[in-house]
This record gives sequence, structure tokens and C-alpha cells, in this order.
Amino acid sequence: MHALTAWVPAGFPDVRPGTDLAAAILEVLSRNDLTLEPGDVLVLAQKVVSKAEGAVVNLAEVAPGPHAQQLAKEAQKDARLCQVILDESRRILRVRPGLIIAEHRLGFICATAGVDFSNVGLGSDWVSLLPRDPDRSAAGVRRAIEQRAGVAVAVIINDTHGRPWREGAVGVAIGVAGLEPIYSYIGQEDLYGYILHSSIEGVADELAAAASLLQGQAAEGTPLVLIRGARFTPGGGRTKLLREPERDMFR
Amino acid sequence: MHALTAWVPAGFPDVRPGTDLAAAILEVLSRNDLTLEPGDVLVLAQKVVSKAEGAVVNLAEVAPGPHAQQLAKEAQKDARLCQVILDESRRILRVRPGLIIAEHRLGFICATAGVDFSNVGLGSDWVSLLPRDPDRSAAGVRRAIEQRAGVAVAVIINDTHGRPWREGAVGVAIGVAGLEPIYSYIGQEDLYGYILHSSIEGVADELAAAASLLQGQAAEGTPLVLIRGARFTPGGGRTKLLREPERDMFR
Repeated sequence: MHALTAWVPAGFPDVRPGTDLAAAILEVLSRNDLTLEPGDVLVLAQKVVSKAEGAVVNLAEVAPGPHAQQLAKEAQKDARLCQVILDESRRILRVRPGLIIAEHRLGFICATAGVDFSNVGLGSDWVSLLPRDPDRSAAGVRRAIEQRAGVAVAVIINDTHGRPWREGAVGVAIGVAGLEPIYSYIGQEDLYGYILHSSIEGVADELAAAASLLQGQAAEGTPLVLIRGARFTPGGGRTKLLREPERDMFR
Repeated sequence: MHALTAWVPAGFPDVRPGTDLAAAILEVLSRNDLTLEPGDVLVLAQKVVSKAEGAVVNLAEVAPGPHAQQLAKEAQKDARLCQVILDESRRILRVRPGLIIAEHRLGFICATAGVDFSNVGLGSDWVSLLPRDPDRSAAGVRRAIEQRAGVAVAVIINDTHGRPWREGAVGVAIGVAGLEPIYSYIGQEDLYGYILHSSIEGVADELAAAASLLQGQAAEGTPLVLIRGARFTPGGGRTKLLREPERDMFR
């Protein structure tokens, strides 16, 4: 019988700009008596990656331009925050009081282009951005863990994004290393010999969603989830999860 | 340390119209030495629920009307299949050769309105539909299991749906019993005392996605996943996961 287990090690340290994430991960795993095995998947919440990499902004140092002032009026949000959102975006998709949906410069479509006040912990004027290059962040953590612990694990950086049509945000993968984010069943036979011709699964997003269930967003904050028993093929790359607009029948 | 485990019991029986699903679940759990506990979540693939309930159609008995003929031409699909898709839909959203995206009569937005050839096993002309009322199906399984095994579990019926912007289908909940599908962090404090004011999580969809990782869609088909260790509040109802169009900023 196949089984999958996800552990949420307690006591992840407070992360500051410059924190060595791989060291923090190995220490917290060790303190929870968890030993990494080949094929394990580590899912790390975007927020700690952003903070460790210094992808944070002090709004006190931001001077909003006219576009940000206009956006702030429409969205009823802080104009300095709006400037940061504009800086992080390719384009703004929707605005209403209290909500800005943007296409992030890396292609993610999400509220406030991923700019967020929660769980930053540097002061009330500080916001976090998404990591500059989350695939690179994931690959860096993966490499450092392989070097120090001698085990090749897959690493996913996840965030929770809202979505069209359905209520509630769900965890999605924004950075992926060591794991092919998409699995195709096309050409395989079903239980009765019918050849599947349209089944492609977003495996990395499903792992990100499973981890998100356990991470929580409030004071219990547990940014690291270790998943064992997931079946995947080697690979990586967030861009495989981003549909090209011209192929996107849902747009 | 918090942990979540998901088991995929082997040997789920072939399901036919009329199969007693609760009996099949209890038997396969027992054969795999799994004993249900309060707070467990059972995730059941839509396909077996549809088959057990007889939500299947023999295309040989379908006479396509003019609208279906037209749709078949545009989508390059079987006109009888298109008639069934129309019968299952409120409206057709997008059509291109090989693909029809529809709003299912229950509000789900998905390819072919959930009408599917795979894993039906009744003959090459048979397709499956989504269950008539998946919340009711979930509640029925939940009730029967409580009566026979004396344990109150939550039941989710899941399916994999494509989505805008991101590649790969992911598991979503189409029927929910015994579990509140949405969890709100609004009003809670984050790690540093900041009051969260926009965090709402699609817990049932995250559980559905986790299960979908394990169910597979090919010949190994394992429609039942038992999840232990998920934190949720009692409740139910798929409609809470469906965003009203007028509130949907992503549309």
C-alpha cells in the first residue's frame, strides 16, 4: 500500500535578511528527529525565502509616483505600497477597493503582485516581495542541503494564490528544483485499456497545496514541510507551470 | 510535531452502477489493515461515485440535436458526446478543436463539463457524468460509514480540473461532507502580531489536491485516499467553494 507522509517540524527560527536557510532547515529537522531521505520533498513558504534573501522593502523609503497615487485612490490602499506593487508587476489586471490583482513580473497572477505585510516582522512599514528568482532560490537550498547532508531532495517554494471561479486561496509552487512540476498521463492506458489523451497534472502545485494545508498563516507559522512518499520525476522549473497566454483557453 | 499521513489502500473493487460504495470502502480499508478514526478524511475520486450512482451514458443511445452538431464541428468531437456535454452545462465558455470548456450545471467550470471517456469500463461508447449532487453523495457515504463503522469521518469527492494561467490540472473538491471547505484566517494575528485581513484558504481543495497526487489516472487507478492529521472545522457544502460571478474579480 502506498502512503505519503508530511511532517511540519516545530521551532523554525525567526528568519532575517541573511539567514542561511539550508542551515536553518537542517537544524530544525534534526531537532525534530527527522532525517532526510532521497526522494523527499521540502516545501518552504515563500515568506521565509523572501526574508532570508532580503526581498523586503521599507515603505518609509518609497516615494510613490503619479501612477501609484492613482492606483492607491482606486484601491483605497497606501500609495507607497501601490508603488511597490507597480514595481513588481508587468501589468495590473483588476482593481477595486481593497483589492489589486496583478501579473507579477515572473508571470504569476496574484493579489498585490505578491507584496505582503503579514509575517514580515521587521516593523509595521515593511512589506515582503516574492523572491527575485524562486527557481534559483529552490535550487540553492537544494544544492546546499545536498552538500551538507549528502541527500538529494526536491525543493518547492510555495505561496497561496487566489484563483478565478473558486473561493479560497490554495498553495501553488512558485519555485521548483529537483522535481518535474508537470506529470503527463497522455498515452498511458486507463484501468480498462482506454488511452488517455488529455490528462496532465500539476504535481508541484498539488504538493504545494498539501504543504499549505499544514503551514498555516497565523501565529503558529510553520514554514517548512517535509513530504515523503510523493512520486515524481526529476526536473524543475516554475515556468512549466505558467501557461502561455496564447494557449490559455480560460483567459 | 504535527504530521499528516495519506494512505492509498490497494485493491479497490471494480465499481458498477449500483455498487455500495460505503461497503466497498470499508472492505478495502479492512483488507489494508486501516482502521478509521474520528477526524479522518476520506477522499473519493469522482469517477467511482458517478459509476456507482449510474451517472453514465451510452452514446449509442444519444441523438445529437443541431446545437450539438455545430459544437461537434467546431470542437472536432463526437456529436453525441457534444449533446451530453450540452445537457450537462449551463453554458459553453470556450471551444477550439479538441477542447470544450463549459460551466457545468452545478457551477464548476471545467473541460467537457466533466463528461469523460476514461476509466468508465462499460464499453467504448460509454461516458461518465459528474454525480447529480456530489454533496449529497458525500453525505450519503459519510452517513453509511458512520452507521456501519461507528466513526464520523469527513468525505470529499474530488476531480481534477484545469485552471486559467497555470498548466496542469489539479485535484479540486466537487462534493464535501463533514468538513468546512473554507478556512478564514481573517482577524487572527500573524507571528508578529499583525492582524491578517485577507487570508482565506480553500482547505477542501487542498485536501483534494493532496489526494489527487496519489490517486493516479492510469491503470494503477486507486480512487480512495484516507487522510489523517488534517485540521479542519465541521461543516460541508461545495457551493462555498464556488465564487459568485459578481464577486469574481478574476473573471
